[in-house]
Amino acid sequence: MKLILAILSNDDSPVASNALNKNGFSVTKLATTGGFLRAGNTTLIIGCEDEKVEAAIDIIKEYSSKRTEIVPSTASYDIGRYASFPVEVTVGGATIFVLDVAQFLKV
Amino acid sequence: MKLILAILSNDDSPVASNALNKNGFSVTKLATTGGFLRAGNTTLIIGCEDEKVEAAIDIIKEYSSKRTEIVPSTASYDIGRYASFPVEVTVGGATIFVLDVAQFLKV
Amino acid sequence: MKLILAILSNDDSPVASNALNKNGFSVTKLATTGGFLRAGNTTLIIGCEDEKVEAAIDIIKEYSSKRTEIVPSTASYDIGRYASFPVEVTVGGATIFVLDVAQFLKV
Ligand code: NI
Ligand code: NI
Ligand code: NI
Repeated sequence: MKLILAILSNDDSPVASNALNKNGFSVTKLATTGGFLRAGNTTLIIGCEDEKVEAAIDIIKEYSSKRTEIVPSTASYDIGRYASFPVEVTVGGATIFVLDVAQFLKV
Repeated sequence: MKLILAILSNDDSPVASNALNKNGFSVTKLATTGGFLRAGNTTLIIGCEDEKVEAAIDIIKEYSSKRTEIVPSTASYDIGRYASFPVEVTVGGATIFVLDVAQFLKV
Repeated sequence: MKLILAILSNDDSPVASNALNKNGFSVTKLATTGGFLRAGNTTLIIGCEDEKVEAAIDIIKEYSSKRTEIVPSTASYDIGRYASFPVEVTVGGATIFVLDVAQFLKV
């Protein structure tokens, strides 16, 4: 049995949790702030059998890996004049810890 | 030394924490949502000596095990007519992880 | 790789996190209540290489160890008469768990 602690951005957390649930993983969410990622992240606690850790990590990766997105941006280059141009921003990213579980029970 | 992570329903959490405290266990509570239990659960963090893990788990079990309760319910069977009947609902339940602690200190 | 779970008072948490960040540690904060310390504490999650655990603990100790402070206090000794005197109060304190990490990844 393993305990997975995954810290991901608030934006990715709902989709990732949902995908984990659909694949049979139980997920508990902790509200977290700061640290590994920019402000606004969530820590997911997932308990699973050793042989399912890789599947859980693959799902987390799929929905929360660091990636770039092109967003519209605007800059003023003179009083009252603006230029609109696309900017590449990095979003997402997750930090994942896998811990051994000495004992696990549901009561 | 062991670290116990116990995820239980918000309803059971205060009584269980209280009982743990009375038995000499220090308990830290994390607000959690979703997952192992229906919406509204709390994660308790308990640090204790290996030989006290069983006692802590027994207390958690006593106050948070899954059980059924009979609650009153009402159903309308015709416009303006209602029947009152008891319904059995499942409440409580806890998921408990016990982890080995490599180093523990209080400063 | 190790995972450090440090539970410290809300008063000490921002300075300690800040000092950890400045020394290259990534810190995730969980809002916690009750337990090891009087009401109002924060749990920090820090992932670091085994050889850096001691440095992280030293920083946490420096900014959150239990210490006494002298605060002004007032007591009434007769109706309408008050005496002002200093009181020694204990503040701070941290509980630190170090856990082995079976697998660690950033995606
Ligand atoms: Ni196992
Ligand atoms: Ni031990
Ligand atoms: Ni290691």
